[in-house]
Amino acid sequence: MTTVENGVNVQALLEARTALQGAPEAAQFTWRATSKWDHGVHSTTRVQQFFGLGAEQSHKSESVFDADHPAVFAAEDNGITPIEYLLVGLAGCLTAGVASVAQNRGIQLRSVDAVVEGKHDIRGILGADPDVRNGFNDIKVTFSIDADASKEEIEALVAQSQKRSAVFDALTNPTDVTVEVA
Amino acid sequence: MTTVENGVNVQALLEARTALQGAPEAAQFTWRATSKWDHGVHSTTRVQQFFGLGAEQSHKSESVFDADHPAVFAAEDNGITPIEYLLVGLAGCLTAGVASVAQNRGIQLRSVDAVVEGKHDIRGILGADPDVRNGFNDIKVTFSIDADASKEEIEALVAQSQKRSAVFDALTNPTDVTVEVA
Repeated sequence: MTTVENGVNVQALLEARTALQGAPEAAQFTWRATSKWDHGVHSTTRVQQFFGLGAEQSHKSESVFDADHPAVFAAEDNGITPIEYLLVGLAGCLTAGVASVAQNRGIQLRSVDAVVEGKHDIRGILGADPDVRNGFNDIKVTFSIDADASKEEIEALVAQSQKRSAVFDALTNPTDVTVEVA
Repeated sequence: MTTVENGVNVQALLEARTALQGAPEAAQFTWRATSKWDHGVHSTTRVQQFFGLGAEQSHKSESVFDADHPAVFAAEDNGITPIEYLLVGLAGCLTAGVASVAQNRGIQLRSVDAVVEGKHDIRGILGADPDVRNGFNDIKVTFSIDADASKEEIEALVAQSQKRSAVFDALTNPTDVTVEVA
């Protein structure tokens, strides 16, 4: 019996794992975002609906995100740069994993902070050098974690979080992306 | 002489391309996000500072993003799911590219809308099936574009946007991600 309380309902997740092993079709989710161009390189993207467990689902509210380019790219900086959203997703995913694994292992967390840095040679996107890729050169995540656990246990939490992270996988392995005009 | 006005300063971007061809060190950017665990799988990530053109730079304001899991994952839904942030970034990047290429080609845009859908078999992240990956199965982007151009010209805009997109590259090709504990 653990008195650890990180706020993650691990029991429900373990039950979902068992349930979905026998119902793979319910495990097929579709996440969705709809975007609208505003002006220049500024756009607005909305997220609320998604599909999963065999039915349309909804977040409890709509989230709206501005993307733009900074002033040093001769733009208006009405929001973060699109590529920065990948770092936001990576931070959120790995942190959620740390909390979930800690709950499952009976480790009480006090704080979990991370700095995510993505190196980017912008000669790629500008077309200045065809040998430079468009995306990140590499990404580094540095966690600072205060918990009732040894350094080794904390490192093992972070390692297990990576192993199960959707965003870590999406960035470290290729995904097929199809782009069409309606 | 074009009278097209999509709001993109193409002249500055072409000048930057030329300038950075002779100054590759100035093209080395570092994008940065700092996250803090809140409770459960809810975290808050902040973006403001970045490095580029040889110096620390700053967005004109700080942006703050909540990530959480939805109620169907037994969580509190205080923000979108981390993996959804990847779709937000992809929408913003491809839309910025469409606007930039249209400006460069003298095509006036009236509206650019996109729906981005990421298929995700959640048995991977739950550990229900070791043969299922953690990330997206695949992603589909569908653009609806109203512009002073033929269907073929619009399709060519979208194709060129993909070719120069930082986020499209980051999702379709692998990136090395290092995760450490401070």
